[in-house]
Amino acid sequence: MSVEEVAQAKNAVEFSRENLESVLKRRFFFAPSFELYGGVSGLYDYGPPGCAFQANVIDVWRKHFILEEDMLEVDCSMLTPYEVLKTSGHVDKFSDWMCRDLKTGEIFRADHLVEEVLESRLKGDQEARGLTKDANANAQEDADKKKRKKKVKEIKAVKLDDNVVKEYEEILAKIDGYSGQELGELMIKYNIGNPVTGEALEPPMAFNLMFETAIGPSGQLKGYLRPETAQGQFLNFNKLLEFNNHKTPFASASIGKSFRNEISPRSGLLRVREFLMAEIEHFVDPLNKTHPRFDEVKNIKLRFLPREVQQSGSTEPIETTIEDAVATKMVDNQTLGYFIARIYSFLMAIGVDSNKLRFRQHMANEMAHYAADCWDAELKTSYGWIECVGCADRSAYDLTVHANKTKEKLVVRQKLEEPVQVTKWEIELTKKLFGPKFRKDAPKVESFLLNLSQEELEAKAKELKAGGKIVFEVEGMDSQIELDDKFVSIEQVTRTEHVREFVPNVIEPSFGIGRIIYSVFEHVFWSRPEDSARAVLSFPPLVAPTKVLLVPLSNHPDLSSVAHQVSKVFRKEKIPFKVDDSGVSIGKRYSRNDELGTPFGVTIDFESAKDGTVTLRERDSTKQVRGTVEEVVKAIRDITYNGVTWEEGTKSLKPFETQSE
Amino acid sequence: MSVEEVAQAKNAVEFSRENLESVLKRRFFFAPSFELYGGVSGLYDYGPPGCAFQANVIDVWRKHFILEEDMLEVDCSMLTPYEVLKTSGHVDKFSDWMCRDLKTGEIFRADHLVEEVLESRLKGDQEARGLTKDANANAQEDADKKKRKKKVKEIKAVKLDDNVVKEYEEILAKIDGYSGQELGELMIKYNIGNPVTGEALEPPMAFNLMFETAIGPSGQLKGYLRPETAQGQFLNFNKLLEFNNHKTPFASASIGKSFRNEISPRSGLLRVREFLMAEIEHFVDPLNKTHPRFDEVKNIKLRFLPREVQQSGSTEPIETTIEDAVATKMVDNQTLGYFIARIYSFLMAIGVDSNKLRFRQHMANEMAHYAADCWDAELKTSYGWIECVGCADRSAYDLTVHANKTKEKLVVRQKLEEPVQVTKWEIELTKKLFGPKFRKDAPKVESFLLNLSQEELEAKAKELKAGGKIVFEVEGMDSQIELDDKFVSIEQVTRTEHVREFVPNVIEPSFGIGRIIYSVFEHVFWSRPEDSARAVLSFPPLVAPTKVLLVPLSNHPDLSSVAHQVSKVFRKEKIPFKVDDSGVSIGKRYSRNDELGTPFGVTIDFESAKDGTVTLRERDSTKQVRGTVEEVVKAIRDITYNGVTWEEGTKSLKPFETQSE
Repeated sequence: MSVEEVAQAKNAVEFSRENLESVLKRRFFFAPSFELYGGVSGLYDYGPPGCAFQANVIDVWRKHFILEEDMLEVDCSMLTPYEVLKTSGHVDKFSDWMCRDLKTGEIFRADHLVEEVLESRLKGDQEARGLTKDANANAQEDADKKKRKKKVKEIKAVKLDDNVVKEYEEILAKIDGYSGQELGELMIKYNIGNPVTGEALEPPMAFNLMFETAIGPSGQLKGYLRPETAQGQFLNFNKLLEFNNHKTPFASASIGKSFRNEISPRSGLLRVREFLMAEIEHFVDPLNKTHPRFDEVKNIKLRFLPREVQQSGSTEPIETTIEDAVATKMVDNQTLGYFIARIYSFLMAIGVDSNKLRFRQHMANEMAHYAADCWDAELKTSYGWIECVGCADRSAYDLTVHANKTKEKLVVRQKLEEPVQVTKWEIELTKKLFGPKFRKDAPKVESFLLNLSQEELEAKAKELKAGGKIVFEVEGMDSQIELDDKFVSIEQVTRTEHVREFVPNVIEPSFGIGRIIYSVFEHVFWSRPEDSARAVLSFPPLVAPTKVLLVPLSNHPDLSSVAHQVSKVFRKEKIPFKVDDSGVSIGKRYSRNDELGTPFGVTIDFESAKDGTVTLRERDSTKQVRGTVEEVVKAIRDITYNGVTWEEGTKSLKPFETQSE
Repeated sequence: MSVEEVAQAKNAVEFSRENLESVLKRRFFFAPSFELYGGVSGLYDYGPPGCAFQANVIDVWRKHFILEEDMLEVDCSMLTPYEVLKTSGHVDKFSDWMCRDLKTGEIFRADHLVEEVLESRLKGDQEARGLTKDANANAQEDADKKKRKKKVKEIKAVKLDDNVVKEYEEILAKIDGYSGQELGELMIKYNIGNPVTGEALEPPMAFNLMFETAIGPSGQLKGYLRPETAQGQFLNFNKLLEFNNHKTPFASASIGKSFRNEISPRSGLLRVREFLMAEIEHFVDPLNKTHPRFDEVKNIKLRFLPREVQQSGSTEPIETTIEDAVATKMVDNQTLGYFIARIYSFLMAIGVDSNKLRFRQHMANEMAHYAADCWDAELKTSYGWIECVGCADRSAYDLTVHANKTKEKLVVRQKLEEPVQVTKWEIELTKKLFGPKFRKDAPKVESFLLNLSQEELEAKAKELKAGGKIVFEVEGMDSQIELDDKFVSIEQVTRTEHVREFVPNVIEPSFGIGRIIYSVFEHVFWSRPEDSARAVLSFPPLVAPTKVLLVPLSNHPDLSSVAHQVSKVFRKEKIPFKVDDSGVSIGKRYSRNDELGTPFGVTIDFESAKDGTVTLRERDSTKQVRGTVEEVVKAIRDITYNGVTWEEGTKSLKPFETQSE
């Protein structure tokens, strides 16, 4: 088959999630954890091919980002004390809305419940209108119901008013943005209760998604499993800056597991309780977000779904270069744009289908209040468009909150070429008077005053001048405090500064590796048109779990001996391979192998025993060529690790004709 | 310097842990986690060089074991439900003994407390006898006291009776083997209380070392963070066996974090609450523990400290080949021996000093009751001999307990060449009578009877024959149960079997990566004799965090341009490198680099701008040679990744003389 024929063949048989899942299960790419004990939802184990694929994806990620961009990798603790996550905002805000059914004890995630119920009513409406779907879509849905543990078990064919349909559709479009109270109101307004019993539920309550534990034997130190890998990087900022010889911009990176105690996990690998993340924190001057290597990526064309397009109700992306996207301010700045382009090229390298990738900008209400801009790389799967990589400009938020809390400076100091005159309000405290007056509270009062902003200082200066005293309240102290000018002075001072001090902004590309892996499974999966039971996973050789299947044609000792020799060569070259010397037919062995996504097959036959040549088979086209072991190994290495095409890599090898598989 | 001179130089300056720790901290190999918030004991973050070193060690491990031996890697969940760890024995037995001081609220780990108090009394005795140690050892101890948070703050010079000294020494030799009750008795007998106040403590209580959490929103599903990575491998046994086309022996492997809620962590990276493990579970026929590749390792010589030597009170190891160790039955079997040898060669590859490695056999009372044999690879550090790798024959314990609990078979079925006649006791139940008699307890009673061993069945058969009934008790049911022969029949039956079914035994090499990493830090650390402030970390190039430091001699644009070109070559070759174009002297830059353990320096000078040649410096000897960029890159690649020596790798390059650094 030619390249074009292969491309055609890949699209000939319609994608079936059921078939894919059957292959992934049969070949142990992954499986529910603790299945022997009945399983725990939202927890999965990767078997050998899934684990190898994951390791290869991480290896590419490490080379593509950390090595190529000279990032500073850190590996930080997962166990995280309460204080850190209180400061970061996770203790207060990292939660979903849950509703309890007091009768059955069931717990529902409010937004998912509203979504499912309204969707099922819309489907019922379609049925009542006689607009049913094809059998395949129905089968898919049936399979979904079983697999995804949908709460709504049955679709009732009930026609809705046209304006109700419109209301439902509008709600579904905004389903990610509702507060708990709003969800509760929707549930009352549209009579959404337990989908099975119809009973009303408790109003939505916030459920924090962090797993809680106690550190140490006393049980006194409350901790959580980290919900993301970012905090460890922020907390080490000063050490990293020093390690980088105080040069900026620079980036840190971290690869590791994070945890979210999902209310009711669903969608297989897409929403799980324990997951591998890879996160970058790029620390950059807020006044200069250009990127020195932007030119290298500027011509990359991407599909953007900016805020305005979404607001207009469209899902039609804008296709343009990243240079243009930054120039028109669609993407906020060059550094953000640079990373968006680099995310794209990483995803291409590991097998994502470029036609199933878009960059969607966060709507204003989706984004954290401090974020300057945020884009998600979304991958299209049978579950819809899935957020797989986030790329946010988090401004100076994280470093600022940790610095404020710990009173440690987290700043960059930059020598100015030219000294500048800076006029500032400055406060001075007569510290010896604070102790006698405030006793143990003295540090609190001092800290409050020393942390006033320029605006606050200006106001206080006026107050002091006007009334000879200032009045204020300090958190954790009961009464108002009054201080006169014996205690404080506030003056406007002009100084010559030789150093500029600033809190860097953070651009954060954040990768959900499990979600990316599952999406790639869908993108590279196809069935041979001549026999749809013959499934193939067309992983790019670079990330394929195993690179080569070694197949002795029979168990004859002569062939085993050659197989042993060839194995040694692959082992020495550190090319991951498997031997299949099972008795089954060669066709069966290759089929098994196609399901594992192994890009190359090397067959050892009686000729091999005589002249040392072997055949090399390409997985997708099933083309075969023949050459010496050395030639074949070189071709495999070039195609797998050096980015050479099959045609180029095998041009010196002889085509090998065989009966069709 | 010649190879011999380098070896000499490395031992010239006495090892100082304080100096090492200062380098590791200054160069951010690792740091206490959450230091900005005051830190949490037992939790550490790896900074860029520590993280890169760890990644390289893992990469070597993966190639050395998984790839080389065709192991099946899995990546399993850390969150683990209660039931699994109840079955494995961790809920009941994975604990240390802690003592509370009811007055101060302090908590002590009982064995460590006894150990420290007796050690300090022995030291006091030494002082009283005038047998003090050298200043260096004292300084080390002072540093220890600060760093390791020792409970005993002060050594009192009190002379002890000779027989008390002997008693103390005997207790210390067996300190790992005492039960909680025994520790409590020792504390009373020797009057060991809170070392600061002298007050008596509560008797030792078991403290389970697993971190507990709740999975899901209801809080009903109790879970733990896994204390080891082994259970996930056991639970996936059937899937792995199928993946391996039902062939045995085979091994699975897993690399990942595990967690232990240490009572009072100490000794830096050696005893932590969150740590990286790499574990292998090799599943083998209990009747045939030979290993097909044993011949490849049989001549490796190792230092063994078998049980008998330890019992005799000696610590003098036996040095012999692994072949001899297995032949004399010192090591139980070939497969265990094979892995011991492979552990050795792995440790050599990553920089362990062979003179600071021994294999110590577990004493009978140290070993789990089910283990057939167990050897620890111990590395010598300034904290003593540290267990870094365990290598145990766990027999069929793990698969058996999980199979019994879940009623799923975890066995290998092997077609017999010749069918065999097997005579067995078999029990038959008249099931229709069980329901009416036992109601909801019927499954429990049935399960009890169906799980009786051959010996038990034989006894029950006799009982039934003699008295017409059997009497027994079932866990969880109140009264004794009596059944007559209408309910059960027990007969001896002879059958022809074509398949042999067996529970494989497990050989488990288990690596504590963090402990290994710290030990390597100590083993490769030295100071230059000419200036002890100049420290070097002599990592083998293969695992060094960064391979090359690129040093332009000045900031002249001509040199920057060459540096840029050379950078591109290194990036393309995927050789991890750093550029140091800071203004400081070349000597300073190399010193910094030696502390980071970077094996090669490439200097760019004005000659480079003219003729494209650069100098290559070797870290340990500070030798320099000169050649083209291509020649130098080839030498670096060969030495780093292909195991070529410096002499061999640079023989075509010109020696380059420079003023001494």
